[in-house]
Amino acid sequence: MSSSVPKPRCLQRPFVAPRLHMFGPGPSNVPTRILQAGAQPIIGHMHPEMFEIMDDIKSGIQYAFQTRNSMTFAVSGTGHTAMECALVNAVEPGESVLAAVNGIWGERATNVAERIGARVNTIAAPPGGTFILQEIEQALSRHRPMVFFVVHGESSTGVLQPLEGIGDLCRKYKCLLLVDSVASMGGTPLYMDKLGIDILYTGSQKVLNAPPGTAPISFSQRACQKALNRKTKPVSFSLDLTWLANYWGCDGAPARMYHHTGPVSAFYSLRESLAVLSEEGLENSWERHRTAAEYFHNGLESMGLKLYVKDKNARLPTVTTIVAPLGYDCYEIRSYLMKTHNLEISGGLGPSFGLVLRVGLMGCNSSKANVDMVLRALKDALEHCHRSKM
Amino acid sequence: MSSSVPKPRCLQRPFVAPRLHMFGPGPSNVPTRILQAGAQPIIGHMHPEMFEIMDDIKSGIQYAFQTRNSMTFAVSGTGHTAMECALVNAVEPGESVLAAVNGIWGERATNVAERIGARVNTIAAPPGGTFILQEIEQALSRHRPMVFFVVHGESSTGVLQPLEGIGDLCRKYKCLLLVDSVASMGGTPLYMDKLGIDILYTGSQKVLNAPPGTAPISFSQRACQKALNRKTKPVSFSLDLTWLANYWGCDGAPARMYHHTGPVSAFYSLRESLAVLSEEGLENSWERHRTAAEYFHNGLESMGLKLYVKDKNARLPTVTTIVAPLGYDCYEIRSYLMKTHNLEISGGLGPSFGLVLRVGLMGCNSSKANVDMVLRALKDALEHCHRSKM
Repeated sequence: MSSSVPKPRCLQRPFVAPRLHMFGPGPSNVPTRILQAGAQPIIGHMHPEMFEIMDDIKSGIQYAFQTRNSMTFAVSGTGHTAMECALVNAVEPGESVLAAVNGIWGERATNVAERIGARVNTIAAPPGGTFILQEIEQALSRHRPMVFFVVHGESSTGVLQPLEGIGDLCRKYKCLLLVDSVASMGGTPLYMDKLGIDILYTGSQKVLNAPPGTAPISFSQRACQKALNRKTKPVSFSLDLTWLANYWGCDGAPARMYHHTGPVSAFYSLRESLAVLSEEGLENSWERHRTAAEYFHNGLESMGLKLYVKDKNARLPTVTTIVAPLGYDCYEIRSYLMKTHNLEISGGLGPSFGLVLRVGLMGCNSSKANVDMVLRALKDALEHCHRSKM
Repeated sequence: MSSSVPKPRCLQRPFVAPRLHMFGPGPSNVPTRILQAGAQPIIGHMHPEMFEIMDDIKSGIQYAFQTRNSMTFAVSGTGHTAMECALVNAVEPGESVLAAVNGIWGERATNVAERIGARVNTIAAPPGGTFILQEIEQALSRHRPMVFFVVHGESSTGVLQPLEGIGDLCRKYKCLLLVDSVASMGGTPLYMDKLGIDILYTGSQKVLNAPPGTAPISFSQRACQKALNRKTKPVSFSLDLTWLANYWGCDGAPARMYHHTGPVSAFYSLRESLAVLSEEGLENSWERHRTAAEYFHNGLESMGLKLYVKDKNARLPTVTTIVAPLGYDCYEIRSYLMKTHNLEISGGLGPSFGLVLRVGLMGCNSSKANVDMVLRALKDALEHCHRSKM
């Protein structure tokens, strides 16, 4: 046999990535320091140096999540994979999941849980809104779920869900509290243990400023008790907590067995991103995001723009949703910003599709200087983009 | 609330990766050119430039696999994830899978298929052995599976499975042919279309010399026909072919929808690795691996070492299994090589555990110079390591 599919010409062009201001809801810009950490030479996924890096990552996540859970590690995948990892391990077919849906992530969790055979009930809040303890308790009492899923930072709508008190309710109703903090972790206070969160995950490409592809996750003792004493095997071998726990040295076993080949370079950059967060300190990072967001929101309102989330306390400091400016085509605004300012902002997603512009200022991107840049660019766009008569 | 989990000290140390000769069964060394491609600035997972990169990757995989399948893309995960992606999409609960087991990968596929509710039958060959058409046909005729799984390069035993004729048998018995080429692709002739392979996958970290974390995969029209006309949804949202096909522009739809955030940096490096393979040319790469392996195997036998795979034609040119030298402790040999020569080789895995040393010379590592280096180092190890009286 001879080669019959010819060499592709497109691969002869060298690829040079454009330098952009990544001010959408993620991925955010990755500092050179973190990119270069990821470009270090490859070592083996089972080398002692690798296990040390994984131990460092574990410590970094424990700090970032404010947890002492030993079952803490990074999933080899994005936030979506972490969501699947949580549900696939915590829920057996036929068991009940309650999902709080006020944006796309609640919808996705519902989709994921249904696929693995869970009975899923939902409580809904209008996009831009949050859930109060009373309605959560009513739903827990009515559905008696095994897992309650809620999103801390709903990046599709720009909403920050208060978590205080939910952990106690979940204990009262004997259910596990599963929280998605992909868009919030590192940008706003979050104390896994104190809040009684049983499973928490985030993504690498938001406040952590690492490339997408790894997802920190942590399981409480209650969650482990459930996940490690199942009647059925989790449907996914790759995401099986028993195997992952051993690979990450979380199970106390004397030796780590080969499970899968971890993404070595991505673990290098994740470690570096956790080192950066640790250097600044969580409280400083939270405060920096809070200050920049407040400054940004004031600036937007001064320009006559409206914020999509009415309640000031429910505004996510990492991702801001701006009501689509009347008379403008949001797509034109975004294209103009990219073309003229090399600046990415995003449109709506899921329930906010067509209704908002989304600006993410996360990790190193969250600064007064960047807020000023976005405000100037937006002003410029509103002056130059086409506006229909109203 | 105040921060109660303190900053981890371990993250204060900068991490510097050691420079090693990665001559185990993978990950292999990553050339600076590919590492630096992965360190380019991040762009968005839905940017036009990203879709262009993904299209380039698709073309590169079509060339590397020698296929014209439009359903060709990279899974955001390792070879294991690709294995799950194949089975999760092609098989519905209750359907039958036949797995050829002559090493760890057949065992893993069995495990994965059972978890998703498939009825799994196996045919077994002793470790180091291959399957002949007659026994495959007998099993196909007896079990009438929906999918037949076979490993092209069984890296746990160093075996290359001939694939000629299996595609025809699978057509005769109306089953899909699923082939794992993680350890073989690029290092030995493999023509997906001509061989009638319905689903083929590999990993980024072997012959392609990219960091671990992405996995090229391709589905034939027959495979798509089955996978896209299921009665049940695949258990995994992340791996759902309908969504992935759209994200990768394989479904002919006018627009790509957000599915998950692809690992941008890993796609950069995968693209570069495919460009490198394309520059050299598949036939040249195959010939280089063949020549280096033959030279290596002769050298080993000249030293008095024995190859684990008796049949010369069944020896994988990428991963060589050497019978554990009599009287030596394999672990000591490997430690000595790492300590004294910064050189990784591996021990056995699964059925070959404790029985062999495994040496991988893949992609850029497959050269006469590297063979000489390994032979010298092995000789040195056998001279210096402890040998028990026999």
